[in-house]
This record gives sequence, structure tokens and C-alpha cells, in this order.
Amino acid sequence: MAGLFITFEGTEGCGKSTQIKALAERLQSEGKQVLQTREPGGTPLGEAVRNLLQHDAAGAGMSPEAELLLFTASRAQLTRERIIPAIAAGQIVLCDRFMDSTTVYQGVARQINTQAVATINQFAVGDARPDLTILIDLSPEAGMARVHARSDGQLDRMEQEAIEFFQAVRTGYLKLAESEPERFLVLDGSASIETLQQTIWTAVQTRLA
Amino acid sequence: MAGLFITFEGTEGCGKSTQIKALAERLQSEGKQVLQTREPGGTPLGEAVRNLLQHDAAGAGMSPEAELLLFTASRAQLTRERIIPAIAAGQIVLCDRFMDSTTVYQGVARQINTQAVATINQFAVGDARPDLTILIDLSPEAGMARVHARSDGQLDRMEQEAIEFFQAVRTGYLKLAESEPERFLVLDGSASIETLQQTIWTAVQTRLA
Repeated sequence: MAGLFITFEGTEGCGKSTQIKALAERLQSEGKQVLQTREPGGTPLGEAVRNLLQHDAAGAGMSPEAELLLFTASRAQLTRERIIPAIAAGQIVLCDRFMDSTTVYQGVARQINTQAVATINQFAVGDARPDLTILIDLSPEAGMARVHARSDGQLDRMEQEAIEFFQAVRTGYLKLAESEPERFLVLDGSASIETLQQTIWTAVQTRLA
Repeated sequence: MAGLFITFEGTEGCGKSTQIKALAERLQSEGKQVLQTREPGGTPLGEAVRNLLQHDAAGAGMSPEAELLLFTASRAQLTRERIIPAIAAGQIVLCDRFMDSTTVYQGVARQINTQAVATINQFAVGDARPDLTILIDLSPEAGMARVHARSDGQLDRMEQEAIEFFQAVRTGYLKLAESEPERFLVLDGSASIETLQQTIWTAVQTRLA
């Protein structure tokens, strides 16, 4: 009885959280066991690392290398403490960001050596790999408009990056999805919440069948 | 005008801190610019990571992989924010632990794949390498007796490891030192503080000459 591991990816404001919540509720209403989690975070250690990465004053001036190692530290703990046990118990894991975020944000947008990013990512997750990755594609301009609308002006460290950074992230995601068409489902984030929900539900039902 | 980068290594209670302090004072009394720092830590980000690694309740149940990534995250930041600029400015850097600690504690004692440890260590430090590494060798029994005497029973997460762990660390250090005799100075940690100070001072003077 192996579970299913689904990750959600996309730039800031693309609507991942809304879709994860809706999918978790629908799966639970059908009697499925669901682990809904997020990166960075999802464990006590990971949430402490998330705070360093996003909000703590100690994160100011963080080097790209330290940033990558902190993201992957959180991922190593989440994978071993929660994701692997949940999949082994037959649960459906829904994770808001996973290793693709590092490939794209640190590898493409921060321009850290691709091989180093792949090696460290691999070290962090071991054999764990998503069965399905849902990429919600949205222009950074539209995404950041949503972020500003919900944030009351309080942007976290990543959200404060320039629009060119998120453009590089978006391009990186689309290229990555092209290279692994079996794993990725690419959706148009400008569609309605209901349209996205229905498309995601259909894809997940297919994987569960 | 390039500086000098000296690291101190050894098991818990070996006397590193005492020797670093004495060496820093002697160098400063001779008019040298000294950066005295430590791992994990040495920067605001690194000190926050140190707290997670040693004291924070969120560190309970930390996986070996997450531990390695946190130590190297702290190292990446310290190397780039403080060590490389100090060496470039002609200073003498004294660092309490550096990449050899990860090679030995995580690679040897935690038995993480040697190649993975080397790759991630290399990623963290870039081109920075110690000119001299002073290994203060002491039996774990003698070292832990000192730790208990000074700690009032409050041991940090690493200090709570079993004696076999520290024996593996000690053996790992000695083997590493054998493989790089030019870089390592191995000292008997059961010698008096004054004897150790004199031997270290002689070695450092030679390197400075």
C-alpha cells in the first residue's frame, strides 16, 4: 500500500495554497488520508529554518550558498520525518514546494552551479520523488499584484526580490516542466479558482485510479 | 598582502577555546589584526543556526542529513561574510572548528557518504582553505570529564552523544591529519595549557615568517 506524493510549484501569488487546501478537503471528503505540508517548514526544525529564510533579521545579507543549504536542510528533515513515513502508510502527500523550487530559485534565478544544486537536492531527499508536480504558471506581475494585495505591505525576504528574479524563476519552471512532461502538469494560473480545482481533481483521480 | 587562516579542531573538552583565546591575545599584543571566530556561528545567521543545532527544542530528532546541511549553511555564511574578507585584508583568522569537523563528525561518526560530505563541504567554502589546522587530540573520556565539570549538567545536543561517537570522531581526526601532514599540527591535549600555548606559538611564528 504505497501512497501518492504530489507537489505544487509556481511563483509567488500563483494560487498554490488555495488549490492545495481545496484538494486536501476534497480528498478527505472521499475518505483519503492526507498529509498537507509545506516548504520550507513542515516540521519544528523546518519551521525554525523557514523563519530564518523569510523573516528573521539574521537572514539579512544571506549568501546564495547558505540560502540553498538552509532550504535543503528543511527539506531533508521534512522528507525523513514526515513525507516518507506518510507515503509508506499509504497517505496522499500534498506539499507546497519541494526540490523543484531549489532547482529553479537557487539554480536558475540565483545562478548557482546546476550540478551542485542537483547533488545537494538529491542528498536532501534520498529516494523520495514526487509522483505528480502541479506547476501553476502565472506572470510575475499578476502574482506580485496578488501578493501585495494580501500582504499589507509586509513582504518576506524572497518576495522582496526584483521582478526580473521572478521572471527567471518562471522561465526556469517552464523549462523544467518541458524536460519531465510525465511528472509535470502545467496549469494557467490566470484561470478561475474553480477551473483550476476541476483540472487538478481530474489529474489526481487519474493518478489514483 | 594575504592573511593567514588557522583552524582549531578536536573533540569536546580538548581545550581549543582556551588556546584560541591565548593565541589571539598574543598575536594582538604583537600588533597583528586577528579575527577570532567559531563554528557553527560567527555571523548573525550562523549563531541562529548554532542555536538550532545545539539548544533549540526544534532540533530534537534532527536527521543526520539536515544536521550536515545546517552546519554547512553556517559555514557558507561565515566563510563569505567574514573569513574571506578578513584574509583578503591581511588579517589572521582563528576559527574554532571548520570543514574538518563536518568531515569527521558527519562523515566518519554519523557515517554519511564520504563523497557527499566532501562535495557539500566544498560547495560551502568555495576556494577557502585553512593554511594551518591545529588538532588537539584528547581521549573522549578525559574531554567529557572536562565538559561535565564546566557544564553544570547542561549538555548541548552534540555533547549528549555516546562515548563511542566521540571515539569515532577522534579516530577520524587522526586519520585525516595523517592524510594531510603539511596542513595539520597534532598536539597532545593532556599536556599543560602552557606547553600547548608554546608549541602553538612556535608553529604560528614559523607560518608567519
